[in-house]
Amino acid sequence: MEELKKRVQKNSFRNKITSPEKAADFIKDGMTVATSGFTPAGYPKEVPLALAKKAEKKPLKINLLTGASVGEELDGALSKACAINKRIPYQTNDHLREAINCGEVKFVDMHLSHMPQMVRYGSLGKIDIALVELVAIKDDGRLVISTSVGNTPTFLREAEKIILEVNSSQPLQLEGIHDIYIPEDPPNRQPIPLVDVSDRIGTPYIEVDEERVVAVVFSDKKDVNREFAPPDEVSEQIAKNLISFLKKEVKEGRIPDELLPFQSGVGSIANAILKGLAGLGMKGLKFYSEVIQDSVLDLLEEGILGFASGTSLTLSPAKLDYFNENYPRFKEKIILRPQEISNNPELIRRLGVIAMNTAIEVDIYGNVNSTHILGRRMMNGIGGSGDFSRNAYLSIFTTPSVRKGGKISCIVPRASHIDHTEHDVQVIVTEQGVADLRGASPQEKAEIIINNCAHPNCREDLEEYFSRCKKEGFGHTPCIGS
Amino acid sequence: MEELKKRVQKNSFRNKITSPEKAADFIKDGMTVATSGFTPAGYPKEVPLALAKKAEKKPLKINLLTGASVGEELDGALSKACAINKRIPYQTNDHLREAINCGEVKFVDMHLSHMPQMVRYGSLGKIDIALVELVAIKDDGRLVISTSVGNTPTFLREAEKIILEVNSSQPLQLEGIHDIYIPEDPPNRQPIPLVDVSDRIGTPYIEVDEERVVAVVFSDKKDVNREFAPPDEVSEQIAKNLISFLKKEVKEGRIPDELLPFQSGVGSIANAILKGLAGLGMKGLKFYSEVIQDSVLDLLEEGILGFASGTSLTLSPAKLDYFNENYPRFKEKIILRPQEISNNPELIRRLGVIAMNTAIEVDIYGNVNSTHILGRRMMNGIGGSGDFSRNAYLSIFTTPSVRKGGKISCIVPRASHIDHTEHDVQVIVTEQGVADLRGASPQEKAEIIINNCAHPNCREDLEEYFSRCKKEGFGHTPCIGS
Repeated sequence: MEELKKRVQKNSFRNKITSPEKAADFIKDGMTVATSGFTPAGYPKEVPLALAKKAEKKPLKINLLTGASVGEELDGALSKACAINKRIPYQTNDHLREAINCGEVKFVDMHLSHMPQMVRYGSLGKIDIALVELVAIKDDGRLVISTSVGNTPTFLREAEKIILEVNSSQPLQLEGIHDIYIPEDPPNRQPIPLVDVSDRIGTPYIEVDEERVVAVVFSDKKDVNREFAPPDEVSEQIAKNLISFLKKEVKEGRIPDELLPFQSGVGSIANAILKGLAGLGMKGLKFYSEVIQDSVLDLLEEGILGFASGTSLTLSPAKLDYFNENYPRFKEKIILRPQEISNNPELIRRLGVIAMNTAIEVDIYGNVNSTHILGRRMMNGIGGSGDFSRNAYLSIFTTPSVRKGGKISCIVPRASHIDHTEHDVQVIVTEQGVADLRGASPQEKAEIIINNCAHPNCREDLEEYFSRCKKEGFGHTPCIGS
Repeated sequence: MEELKKRVQKNSFRNKITSPEKAADFIKDGMTVATSGFTPAGYPKEVPLALAKKAEKKPLKINLLTGASVGEELDGALSKACAINKRIPYQTNDHLREAINCGEVKFVDMHLSHMPQMVRYGSLGKIDIALVELVAIKDDGRLVISTSVGNTPTFLREAEKIILEVNSSQPLQLEGIHDIYIPEDPPNRQPIPLVDVSDRIGTPYIEVDEERVVAVVFSDKKDVNREFAPPDEVSEQIAKNLISFLKKEVKEGRIPDELLPFQSGVGSIANAILKGLAGLGMKGLKFYSEVIQDSVLDLLEEGILGFASGTSLTLSPAKLDYFNENYPRFKEKIILRPQEISNNPELIRRLGVIAMNTAIEVDIYGNVNSTHILGRRMMNGIGGSGDFSRNAYLSIFTTPSVRKGGKISCIVPRASHIDHTEHDVQVIVTEQGVADLRGASPQEKAEIIINNCAHPNCREDLEEYFSRCKKEGFGHTPCIGS
């Protein structure tokens, strides 16, 4: 009760406190529910679990909109209960993935920066319920959201009804870390006034019309984050190749001496690259990305990073505790922003972000598949990779040259699905080497990619394919079979 | 001589006046030459012709960088003389296209907004010569460029040497129409201070270090622009469908009542759509695009457009005369900007541009091929279509449902080349109808596209393919053969 008072400071909100089950009753079959949560952080847990139980008894399907991926309690429980009709814009949950790939769930794979404005434009339909995890409700009713911002500000503004989950496992110290800014919509939009990764342009709180809040629920469930395996040899070699390349670029004057802000995807290669940034031999680097993960905290502590801007704080349980205990050291070095700002083309291009994303496969002409296995099966989604790579100062994609113990080449004749076209892919890095594609024609790209990035065991086949293309597939981009 | 004095007002520049042949001598084998010109307007003519003659006698190859497509005197003459090694970033010349497709010329197909910053970043190598068409040189040495801006400001800043072609066929009245603004490069870039299509943010002139100017050449050759055939029935029906769709969007509140700025590609469908804008029944619409063509002038005169911002004034000879005679009526309604500004993601997203581009083919999942015939042969290039469609308020692609008298379907099972992915294509319009893909999953998209956009003669085959995909090609995006 003391905790409750501390967390829900305004009386009128206390009057709305109810059980997850009763809150879930507001969610009806066919509704569109938009939740907090980005790359398993800050997503609601109790109401989705209660909703899933309901759906198991009496069939019910909702359209589920989030920031990005959310945890098992939401994507897992609801997809297992067959309670999701449509899912937008990104996911990483094993069960949901199967449901998407067998056609049970309709998945809309979108650029993450596009999502909130499309909601406001009305292009994704009406939002019935916003379901949002909070750290606290202030005595004047302002909301302190939790470990991610994602699309929460827009969802709270646009939804007809609001359900709030106040989570006591999330540190109160998060108050102040958020910077909430929603751009005006055209024709009234103004320049976004951010010129440095550390700029604050909004407010740390979100205000809502109280009458739309229909339920406040209490939760103490922690974010469940995936842990990354320590980098393997291949990931470490990719990181080494990438860092050497960046050093050369600085040396030759194509990147400013003070370097530029980095963006990095999430995963074991990304993790290895982040650790590898130490190899640049510089201090005070800037990070303008989506996810602030364990290794980013390490880099901030070591001074290699001077500042980190993201939209989610996705820490392992141990690291979240460490973050809490050492909060004053981090407070001035981290900002969490809406994904519309973290991933904004205007800002990414202005700041000159160096974008580092991973590919599933890359073809010899530099087209990247980020989403589909064999062109058919959805893996996770494009996420923010398009927002960053299209607008980056330098757009880098990483991949091992082979997967499955060498049985599958990640450098392929033709990508089985294309998320990033030849126009958006400047540099490819594998453990074999670096392909710098800037200013290269398709046929030059093919030679550079095969020579520098393909696994030696696959080079001959790729060269043979490319030779046949040139003989049989006359044209600017020679290819066979279309 | 009087004309010369009027056009070249500063004495020190007059001292540099020479013949096209002597100016061309500055251009050596292996050099990178960057010229003015955008969608055959404002490109240099005399020096390229002289250079082509030289190359016919003694082999010579240059790398040729421009704004976009340029005229026969440049792309045509030089490619016929086998004088182009590499060509960046866009072209529409018949002979050059053949040279690209037979592998004689290396072509780099880039987003037009990316090009100038990549030049400044050093990613495309050093520029030896900037070759720029002018209207006049002012008495203080400031340059008045001609019918296009394109990449000229950056080329003039970055080139080691400069050759100027003062063209007496280009109207002196163009002085003042340009608005030159080069953004600072990261980490010093600031918000681009443009919030309305009519805002002026730069200067009408370009200043250069005089010592880099090695030659001034006189020309009286007119821009040679392609004329568009009057819209055929299919183009007119596409335009009608598109305008009906826009009206519905306004009516249902997804587009603001006052509408938003339009961008349009170039070609006969685009021309029909521009004419079709009258059908919206509104006055004072805004145009934020690349090319200001004949029909844009008509719309300005009729008051349907209130303002037009572009990077080139691509008028037929008769219309250019008309423009000159009636200049005061147009002066306050047209601005020509660098393509880095006309095509800027920051500005396109801020202004909420409605982007209307044409496709070569569209697949059932909404991927668009804008560049390659049969996946191999380059047509023109991606141009600005990616800059606009990715960042638009609404991203619309148009295509006839069939070509070649019905022999080829433009709605295909799989695009033979992909320039715009499913993530960037929101609406497809053919003469058959409109496919609104916003918020649709791939399988929903396939049904909408086949039903609404495919030609009735092709629907059954496409449906059969899609059915087979669903049966045999298990996954989120069912497909066969990968």
